[in-house]
Amino acid sequence: MIRVAVLGASGYTARELLNLLLRHPEVEITTLTTRKDSRLPVSEVHPSLRGRLDLVMENLPLQEVADRADCVFGCLPHAASAAAVSELLGAGCRVVDFSADYRLNDPQVYAEWYGVEHPDPGRMPGTVYGLPELYRDSIRGADLVANPGCYPTASILALAPLLKQRIISPRGIVIDAKSGVSGAGRSPKPNLHFPEANENFAAYNIGKHRHTPEIDQVLSTWADVETNVVFSPHLVPMDRGMLSTAYGDIMGEVSSEDLVEVLRSFYANEPFVRVVEHLPCTKEVVQTNFCDITARCVGDKAVVVSTIDNLMKGASGAAVQNFNLMYGFSETLALL
Amino acid sequence: MIRVAVLGASGYTARELLNLLLRHPEVEITTLTTRKDSRLPVSEVHPSLRGRLDLVMENLPLQEVADRADCVFGCLPHAASAAAVSELLGAGCRVVDFSADYRLNDPQVYAEWYGVEHPDPGRMPGTVYGLPELYRDSIRGADLVANPGCYPTASILALAPLLKQRIISPRGIVIDAKSGVSGAGRSPKPNLHFPEANENFAAYNIGKHRHTPEIDQVLSTWADVETNVVFSPHLVPMDRGMLSTAYGDIMGEVSSEDLVEVLRSFYANEPFVRVVEHLPCTKEVVQTNFCDITARCVGDKAVVVSTIDNLMKGASGAAVQNFNLMYGFSETLALL
Amino acid sequence: MIRVAVLGASGYTARELLNLLLRHPEVEITTLTTRKDSRLPVSEVHPSLRGRLDLVMENLPLQEVADRADCVFGCLPHAASAAAVSELLGAGCRVVDFSADYRLNDPQVYAEWYGVEHPDPGRMPGTVYGLPELYRDSIRGADLVANPGCYPTASILALAPLLKQRIISPRGIVIDAKSGVSGAGRSPKPNLHFPEANENFAAYNIGKHRHTPEIDQVLSTWADVETNVVFSPHLVPMDRGMLSTAYGDIMGEVSSEDLVEVLRSFYANEPFVRVVEHLPCTKEVVQTNFCDITARCVGDKAVVVSTIDNLMKGASGAAVQNFNLMYGFSETLALL
Amino acid sequence: MIRVAVLGASGYTARELLNLLLRHPEVEITTLTTRKDSRLPVSEVHPSLRGRLDLVMENLPLQEVADRADCVFGCLPHAASAAAVSELLGAGCRVVDFSADYRLNDPQVYAEWYGVEHPDPGRMPGTVYGLPELYRDSIRGADLVANPGCYPTASILALAPLLKQRIISPRGIVIDAKSGVSGAGRSPKPNLHFPEANENFAAYNIGKHRHTPEIDQVLSTWADVETNVVFSPHLVPMDRGMLSTAYGDIMGEVSSEDLVEVLRSFYANEPFVRVVEHLPCTKEVVQTNFCDITARCVGDKAVVVSTIDNLMKGASGAAVQNFNLMYGFSETLALL
Repeated sequence: MIRVAVLGASGYTARELLNLLLRHPEVEITTLTTRKDSRLPVSEVHPSLRGRLDLVMENLPLQEVADRADCVFGCLPHAASAAAVSELLGAGCRVVDFSADYRLNDPQVYAEWYGVEHPDPGRMPGTVYGLPELYRDSIRGADLVANPGCYPTASILALAPLLKQRIISPRGIVIDAKSGVSGAGRSPKPNLHFPEANENFAAYNIGKHRHTPEIDQVLSTWADVETNVVFSPHLVPMDRGMLSTAYGDIMGEVSSEDLVEVLRSFYANEPFVRVVEHLPCTKEVVQTNFCDITARCVGDKAVVVSTIDNLMKGASGAAVQNFNLMYGFSETLALL
Repeated sequence: MIRVAVLGASGYTARELLNLLLRHPEVEITTLTTRKDSRLPVSEVHPSLRGRLDLVMENLPLQEVADRADCVFGCLPHAASAAAVSELLGAGCRVVDFSADYRLNDPQVYAEWYGVEHPDPGRMPGTVYGLPELYRDSIRGADLVANPGCYPTASILALAPLLKQRIISPRGIVIDAKSGVSGAGRSPKPNLHFPEANENFAAYNIGKHRHTPEIDQVLSTWADVETNVVFSPHLVPMDRGMLSTAYGDIMGEVSSEDLVEVLRSFYANEPFVRVVEHLPCTKEVVQTNFCDITARCVGDKAVVVSTIDNLMKGASGAAVQNFNLMYGFSETLALL
Repeated sequence: MIRVAVLGASGYTARELLNLLLRHPEVEITTLTTRKDSRLPVSEVHPSLRGRLDLVMENLPLQEVADRADCVFGCLPHAASAAAVSELLGAGCRVVDFSADYRLNDPQVYAEWYGVEHPDPGRMPGTVYGLPELYRDSIRGADLVANPGCYPTASILALAPLLKQRIISPRGIVIDAKSGVSGAGRSPKPNLHFPEANENFAAYNIGKHRHTPEIDQVLSTWADVETNVVFSPHLVPMDRGMLSTAYGDIMGEVSSEDLVEVLRSFYANEPFVRVVEHLPCTKEVVQTNFCDITARCVGDKAVVVSTIDNLMKGASGAAVQNFNLMYGFSETLALL
Repeated sequence: MIRVAVLGASGYTARELLNLLLRHPEVEITTLTTRKDSRLPVSEVHPSLRGRLDLVMENLPLQEVADRADCVFGCLPHAASAAAVSELLGAGCRVVDFSADYRLNDPQVYAEWYGVEHPDPGRMPGTVYGLPELYRDSIRGADLVANPGCYPTASILALAPLLKQRIISPRGIVIDAKSGVSGAGRSPKPNLHFPEANENFAAYNIGKHRHTPEIDQVLSTWADVETNVVFSPHLVPMDRGMLSTAYGDIMGEVSSEDLVEVLRSFYANEPFVRVVEHLPCTKEVVQTNFCDITARCVGDKAVVVSTIDNLMKGASGAAVQNFNLMYGFSETLALL
């Protein structure tokens, strides 16, 4: 049994993670931390867990976390996360980090987009990006995995094979992405107040979203090209689910069938990517760890549509998938 | 043209009120107040009004409000409202008050349910309760009208005729009411955060809601009985709309048809009450000032179902209806 | 491994059931039936199951179903279900029946509410009602279990302990219940078209819903009283979740705390009933097999609020709980 | 008073139209038609109109419609509409046609996208496209106006000024559009069943939507360029509202501010286009006839975001705006 701690366990991704870990036959959840001083039972913070998990949220020194846990899932905000992660690694823990801290390789890009100096820049370039479909071998046996962002997961899975095979141009890529509201986190905000967000569809942070450099870095390094994507996120009045519609200029002559075939062949052995022929919708992947993808050729553009559950394949499901790889368990354990 | 001011114009009821007043041929909106010091254009506070109303929200002395307006609609919190209302009346304005301050007659009941001493207790018993279906004659020509709460409007219109005619017993009445989330106001709260309130149905404040004494007072005084209703409010994951299901013990022998006939005959000449035969739903009244009602006899109980738009007949539509009566305009002006 | 078949596998309850059974370590799903002739892969009927379950929906003779399965979950419409169930039992299968066919004991009551003669009246009185909290011992080892309706589950769990202990009167009980739209099934209907049902709250079938006699029968026989409940269902604009607000006349002197204590003590050892102090909401039980309950004393009435997921504890979760009891597995297997 | 008839009055656009016309001081609604034989009161077909409009839906010969009405609003399906329109024009009526029949100029393009021969091809090229922002002068005094589609309205208003001024290239334009579900009409369909469409976001008809040639034709002829847009529609789980995110390659050197300034200057005198600086959302235009637009420069792309209410500026509001122009009324009558 792997003893597991969750840092910053009060948010939505932590709740989903606990839901999954409770079904995992090789996991014992020992520790939940919070930065608040009150010792609340987790069932008050996440009432749906009442009767399933009898732990208290604690504000603990990291050394004590390390004493109690073999593996730590970090759900802390950026910068705070890296500070904790480096200490936990030093104390012998293995870590899956939900924050953005170890996703980017370049401390300057990080400082530019996140507005702070990185607390642990030396570890940035060497940390594996936890997208098993691209980096499975490096995830196996890693001590630290940077769990990907939700938008990058949906976007990269859609575009990577087509870029690698030089079917679409790395220049001029547009990613028009749409997310359910849980992606914005659990803190009440005026624009997320129910009567504002309900029955409303909004564009936000166009050209400025922090997931942009993450998408460009992973696509560019993995496919050995140089992308500079236009990334436009939107907010959908629903709890969870994400759909990305990506547009790339086709190089050469291909049909819709060709595009689908490239995807199908690339993902043939992937347990959590389903290449489909119909245009997918979020409801078919919500509450699952699947990513559904299809593609269409329209004029000179490839249009690639992908869907995930932002809290599952876009966060906590991916974390468990990475955990399974790190420890050599079956990759789908607790995820089907 | 009646010059109109709206006090506390940043909430949802004020926005709906402005929407209606902009269509009112006898109204000129001159003044919008806020208790914040920033002078924001109303189009920044209510973006849907951009291009329709070119006014700034101002933190004004009441005397200046009185100089600019003949009639004031008060959308202030309780207690703050009575303090302003008494001064405005003294300065010669007529007032429609959205707050609870002048709905109750008894200062002690007010203190008990609202937790503060009433600032203007002398005016409480004499102020007319702005439900035209019960008090039309007193509203005509009144200088101050207490605009009813949303739950009381839906509940009282359902029960008053049956109580008056002694068809149901005043004892043991249950009102199980359901409201869209806009009824909870515009301030973000954890339980109204979109991912919490969406896809969720919740009971709240059962037996403790402040609209309870208002319902009892109006039913009891108007129908000359003594009720002591059990009032159970619930929150529905939708923006607006309210449905009340009221249960009363039938005295004597009646059928469903009899119940509907009593309602139909009582409301025969009402412009905004529609007695229907089917079980109503909120969508048929949303964005209108109508109240739909029907009744069923089930066992020994009368079940009376009524629907309103909580922001219209439950607030701003009722206010304009009252305004029309106060000034002798056609009662339906700007409301159909 | 128990070989399992699902009859009528195209609806929402079947989909949820398959989701649960896929996680059940003692189950092998062998057969899915449909009454249509086309042999569709289940992944086309339930796209969320793509990649998880590779079976075809088949229109099979019941004998062949019996050859392939030890236990059959029946998701057929009423009357059709009893015809199939009696044949399957004769062929040696054990059955969990989702339909209403074996819930009622009295063929005449059945004929009156369902409008057809029961095809297998002799088996009605002896079949156990699959609510483990009331009938656990009889479910253990049963060959046929009548899986309860969703409204009855929420209502009976709320009221049974208070009736049994004579705390509330069996006369004059009101159950005001609210359900998400999935409870209405998967067939498109005008009132369930998205732009009609969305942002809408509706009362329906007040005094006429078929779950009424089921509630009365189980409460009356189990608590040895005679109830005649007024049952008022409503439709909530959300996918799943159900909340029941039940009202009963208190006999004697009790407080809210007393009511909660009676519930807590009755359900002390139940794995899926959580007696809580706050007023519950559906989101805390959705996607789980839990029923949350609390109670309040308001005036002379006990108000008991209970919540379930209509597709889980209200249907498929309950079915798996019953299956676990029938076969002697841990009652919570695949359900936590 | 203009006597008005509505053909095919049972859908959502007809309901919205009647709502607006009831507030129009120069309109008398005399006739509502249906192709069904039952003579239903309009209040049964559109219950929200009960008490406001006392007309029966009739299956009438067109000549009788022409006798009763000066102006006809046609809400018929394509092809059926043109057949009726040509006869009504011959009988002396003026017509605002909601169908696609007179939007396209070229009968062959029509046949290709709509799958039928046009019944009245001669009138196609000469009919004015009812987008006042581009064709106001031709709409004034016209006898027949082709009311634009909802997607084209949002997309064309976003792109036309930038194309006209050669700021973006006509080649490679992508329009990623998102619509509330009312845009799909009132007929129940499996994918629009509430539990399917709710909490779901779906791409559909990418590259194949019938509004594509309409967008290309209007942009190309009006701006004198040749576009070939990639048009990707999506379905948002909300009743109404539409947001279009359009992407074009910038030619030359411009900033976000320049883009906004071009839009602002082009629409300076438009009563229903609001050029804003923030990224707009649908809720700020729903229930209004406004179109909100802004633009951003991201890399080499112009990203133009526009929002409308698909049932108002995207259908019935536009129709009333056209009607006002045709008859020389104030353009905003009944629309503010």
